[in-house]
Amino acid sequence: MPITTAVFDAYGTLFDVTAAARQAAAEPDFPALADRWAALAAHWRQKQLQYSWLRAVTGAHTDFWQVTQDGLDWSLEAAGLDGDAELRARLLALYWELGAYPEVPGMLARLKEMGLNTAILSNGSPDMLDGAVQSAGVGALLDDVLSVESVGVFKPDSRVYDLVGGRFGCDKDQVLFVSSNGWDAAAAAGYGFVTAWVNRGGEPVDRLPWRPDHILTDLTQIPELAAQA
Amino acid sequence: MPITTAVFDAYGTLFDVTAAARQAAAEPDFPALADRWAALAAHWRQKQLQYSWLRAVTGAHTDFWQVTQDGLDWSLEAAGLDGDAELRARLLALYWELGAYPEVPGMLARLKEMGLNTAILSNGSPDMLDGAVQSAGVGALLDDVLSVESVGVFKPDSRVYDLVGGRFGCDKDQVLFVSSNGWDAAAAAGYGFVTAWVNRGGEPVDRLPWRPDHILTDLTQIPELAAQA
Repeated sequence: MPITTAVFDAYGTLFDVTAAARQAAAEPDFPALADRWAALAAHWRQKQLQYSWLRAVTGAHTDFWQVTQDGLDWSLEAAGLDGDAELRARLLALYWELGAYPEVPGMLARLKEMGLNTAILSNGSPDMLDGAVQSAGVGALLDDVLSVESVGVFKPDSRVYDLVGGRFGCDKDQVLFVSSNGWDAAAAAGYGFVTAWVNRGGEPVDRLPWRPDHILTDLTQIPELAAQA
Repeated sequence: MPITTAVFDAYGTLFDVTAAARQAAAEPDFPALADRWAALAAHWRQKQLQYSWLRAVTGAHTDFWQVTQDGLDWSLEAAGLDGDAELRARLLALYWELGAYPEVPGMLARLKEMGLNTAILSNGSPDMLDGAVQSAGVGALLDDVLSVESVGVFKPDSRVYDLVGGRFGCDKDQVLFVSSNGWDAAAAAGYGFVTAWVNRGGEPVDRLPWRPDHILTDLTQIPELAAQA
């Protein structure tokens, strides 16, 4: 079946989640971050995901903004920066205006020219996603922004991936699903989507029961993949 | 209600999971591990847990031995050591004979003198747990070793914690549950057990919807806690 619908994870895939800590470290107000921002950003992301999975396993859902704050609070304490309320507020504010990777607007525009449906499918809350999409200026290139909030559980629960067929009326094998998170790409492949893992960091492939169909280093090849698949 | 039953997580709590990589690094056959064993051990544990949670969310259960090998394979590749079949085999063999922390035998013996039920409740497969218990020589001090394999899902799914009441016929608040994993102690507290988190590494408390009742630096105070609770 030809691909009719290209669906993107948001955080880490379209939007650079390390940008918040990197940018705050470059600001004069936060000298303590200079040699700690990379570890802080890594812990923040790691705990944010860990808490999302643990909440999915236990049925203790909350929205992603809460989980994002929870992950940051753990990470600030681990870095010895938990007393800095101004830093916390600045990092959280920056999370609402993460930049998109440079190839994103051109890649989405090409998919629209090709007549494909385009959408985000993300753990993010609708408010957070709205902020990121507006900040990156890509709203006009997306047909929809689908949030897990409408099903009340985080990825990789299959009810999240069900949102795509529900919205676009397409079969699973007509969907090209793109994620920079190896576990998300793997689970989406297990679900039945055609999947591409964007492996910017050159990480090993995750040893899960499913493998992504394609492994890329950035998003530039997505239109080509969608045409070939 | 008085505590009648003391239940322990196994890996990281009674048994030192970093011991395998540390010991292999001290052996003459594996010089490449010298400056990499700590990162390898951390990645191994992180991926092992991550895969267990992702499999719990997606319903793709397998036994913990498979997940342990999967986590090691990712970590060996990340360390540039994935071609070393001898190292892989040695690390896996050592995982079957992890040492117990030094205070474990005395602590368990005291609990038995106090008349409490004692048990392990672990993600580990029955075979793995049997190996570790025998290697540590603590089998006679444990009334039972409960594995998630009997319910086919990993922690922190509540069906795992249900195994304790099913085995010992006790109420939740008669159970002192002990884990070195912050997320396990937190989820067990949410389940209703009295919980102690053994925080050997001085990590921040996990920002989950539940908090452990007690935070300790090792296991020596467990009998005192069980008597007081």
